[in-house]
Amino acid sequence: MTRRILLTGFDAFGGEVINPSWLVAQALHGEVIGDATVVAQRLPCVFGQASSELQAAVAAQRPLLVLALGQAAGRAELTPERVAINVDDARIADNAGAQPLDCAIVARGPAAYFSTLPVKAMVAAMRQAGVPAAVSQTAGTFVCNHVFYGLMHMLRRRRTVRGGFMHLPLLPEQAAGKPGQPSLPLAQQVAGVRVALAAACAHRIDLHLGGGALG
Amino acid sequence: MTRRILLTGFDAFGGEVINPSWLVAQALHGEVIGDATVVAQRLPCVFGQASSELQAAVAAQRPLLVLALGQAAGRAELTPERVAINVDDARIADNAGAQPLDCAIVARGPAAYFSTLPVKAMVAAMRQAGVPAAVSQTAGTFVCNHVFYGLMHMLRRRRTVRGGFMHLPLLPEQAAGKPGQPSLPLAQQVAGVRVALAAACAHRIDLHLGGGALG
Amino acid sequence: MTRRILLTGFDAFGGEVINPSWLVAQALHGEVIGDATVVAQRLPCVFGQASSELQAAVAAQRPLLVLALGQAAGRAELTPERVAINVDDARIADNAGAQPLDCAIVARGPAAYFSTLPVKAMVAAMRQAGVPAAVSQTAGTFVCNHVFYGLMHMLRRRRTVRGGFMHLPLLPEQAAGKPGQPSLPLAQQVAGVRVALAAACAHRIDLHLGGGALG
Amino acid sequence: MTRRILLTGFDAFGGEVINPSWLVAQALHGEVIGDATVVAQRLPCVFGQASSELQAAVAAQRPLLVLALGQAAGRAELTPERVAINVDDARIADNAGAQPLDCAIVARGPAAYFSTLPVKAMVAAMRQAGVPAAVSQTAGTFVCNHVFYGLMHMLRRRRTVRGGFMHLPLLPEQAAGKPGQPSLPLAQQVAGVRVALAAACAHRIDLHLGGGALG
Repeated sequence: MTRRILLTGFDAFGGEVINPSWLVAQALHGEVIGDATVVAQRLPCVFGQASSELQAAVAAQRPLLVLALGQAAGRAELTPERVAINVDDARIADNAGAQPLDCAIVARGPAAYFSTLPVKAMVAAMRQAGVPAAVSQTAGTFVCNHVFYGLMHMLRRRRTVRGGFMHLPLLPEQAAGKPGQPSLPLAQQVAGVRVALAAACAHRIDLHLGGGALG
Repeated sequence: MTRRILLTGFDAFGGEVINPSWLVAQALHGEVIGDATVVAQRLPCVFGQASSELQAAVAAQRPLLVLALGQAAGRAELTPERVAINVDDARIADNAGAQPLDCAIVARGPAAYFSTLPVKAMVAAMRQAGVPAAVSQTAGTFVCNHVFYGLMHMLRRRRTVRGGFMHLPLLPEQAAGKPGQPSLPLAQQVAGVRVALAAACAHRIDLHLGGGALG
Repeated sequence: MTRRILLTGFDAFGGEVINPSWLVAQALHGEVIGDATVVAQRLPCVFGQASSELQAAVAAQRPLLVLALGQAAGRAELTPERVAINVDDARIADNAGAQPLDCAIVARGPAAYFSTLPVKAMVAAMRQAGVPAAVSQTAGTFVCNHVFYGLMHMLRRRRTVRGGFMHLPLLPEQAAGKPGQPSLPLAQQVAGVRVALAAACAHRIDLHLGGGALG
Repeated sequence: MTRRILLTGFDAFGGEVINPSWLVAQALHGEVIGDATVVAQRLPCVFGQASSELQAAVAAQRPLLVLALGQAAGRAELTPERVAINVDDARIADNAGAQPLDCAIVARGPAAYFSTLPVKAMVAAMRQAGVPAAVSQTAGTFVCNHVFYGLMHMLRRRRTVRGGFMHLPLLPEQAAGKPGQPSLPLAQQVAGVRVALAAACAHRIDLHLGGGALG
């Protein structure tokens, strides 16, 4: 039986025509990392529907490990997320026009779930490969956090499947007209996600490394 | 019987000689806001001890409402925090020399607690008063988040006592030698916390306003 | 005969309804600093006209020292400018609707003029007073730089009159609705300009202090 | 007779072990751009000596066009510089240990020289190629500005040789351990400098495009 890594990316949103998360997932589709094969899946940038499609993909693929990717304008690094919180609070409308404010993602669900991927080991591996990386303490409150929370809620009783989320910088072609906006080319982002996935496969227990924030 | 608001601030840390959070709390000590009197309490910037002293103060004062304040270098605004997470991950040592990495604050505690203060109403009130303010999605992973999580854990079964945390910018005298570092004078910070507390007293249900982050 | 300091500020521009530079100048009007009296003058945010009105004010007041103030959104500090360059390159229209691109301010004028105010001493004095301050290496290419260049061109042969420019942060009420935007209240800005003017009066030769930028 | 473009880069400095400017120059050495061949030259990060070696290279190569490259930590884009100013003001020591404060580069030289390269056309070409780019209004006051000013002073009477300076972001391997620091991989930087040089060859008159700064 084939061992699989499910790697998701999003449709473009917020006026962009591309989204690095889907381009990266697509680029790694079919690659073997550790002893598992990457299966890429595209998700709509739509509250609710994105989580349903992720759930269907998990059911269909029965992966060992799930990493959802998303775009974070303004960030200069690849940032594995530490925690997903139980709230939708949308600063802009999603691709279906919905803009929830302060809604629970799962009614009576826990306030948050921690990633079950080794975020410190992933950051260390990416830095060693020369790719800018840092642990992030917040995945925001838009569709990215929504999917991340939905994923961890889905996996809460399946101890054998680990999951998490990573935000990616803009691509240079997205940042080209926006002075001061950091970016990182696709090849670099693909390389980063590849070694991060390898580290996630290799480390069931995370490394004892710093990665906190003062506030 | 006197109705009380407990307002805490921290000792200076990280090489600073002052901490705006304690100066602000001190400045408001004894003021009547709504129909409650502010009681200021200083906390050490020490993991564990800070929470114990806060717990003792809550027991002694029996406040209606608790707002813990902390300093956040790099922020330009007063930022009510939305959520506290169950992890200590210290980038620097605390004032007693401890530097925990990825330790749970409460073993088997929930991953997070949401603030029970109306963060949107507090931000709206501060902005109306001309004080820069924004909702924050992360209180970091140092002593500030530690105290915030400890507070919400302590209050988890006391529905009558509401609590939360707010980060404050540096004071101009702290930022004076650090190019590019934002700051806000004490008078402005005091004014902001005053109207934020009044809004917290007035709004048991938060306002339906935006304040999310994309990622 | 009265000794005078001419202190100018601008009208609001770019969608703002106030401009800290004029509020600060107004607040200091009539004050005696060193042995000179501050005379405040408001300038329109209009290419050409701003310089003509400044020239008329210099002719009328015959000041010892001229400091022009302007607003710089995004800056966290009071920033004395080191150099004015001979180009108008407007990212937005001025208050009269003009938007020059890459036009010389003075045809065949020198590429730049250095401030004749002691920018290092001014920064040192402001920091000592607890006001965030830093030397700036660029006054931009909008009306602020235009007025600064025009002033230094006007003073180029009058060795007895010294002149310069300082940018000011936004006021908190301007920044209140703009997440992440630094600001500084009026009282602090007034205090900073006051001690900077005193330092400018006291130091004909600038202090030998750092204040450079790597690039 | 061969037509040449002289492209310079610097040694590593400030604790770094590599410098993108020299890696980019080296990568383009020997390439034909327009109808000219790129000649790469490494410069020491040393006040005085860097300019002397550049002068010798200009004398030896007799190029049509000179572009000096330098590293600018903190910038997210490739930034052609508009203007060089006549001052050395070093925040750190150069590679020979010198740290001049507020010294004229050329005694009695003009306050500044504008680039004679078409900075707007260069930015437009890089953006079209998907490389983040913006005009910069300041080259700082360290060895980069020193070399840029020295170059323009050297070329001031040679109307046939055009020259300028461009700052480059850090490479990802330099930024990997520095949270929040933007970077751009070498391949992207090389691609950007290539199209910028092509645009500089093609446009003797700059394009009429925006690229100013408010302040």
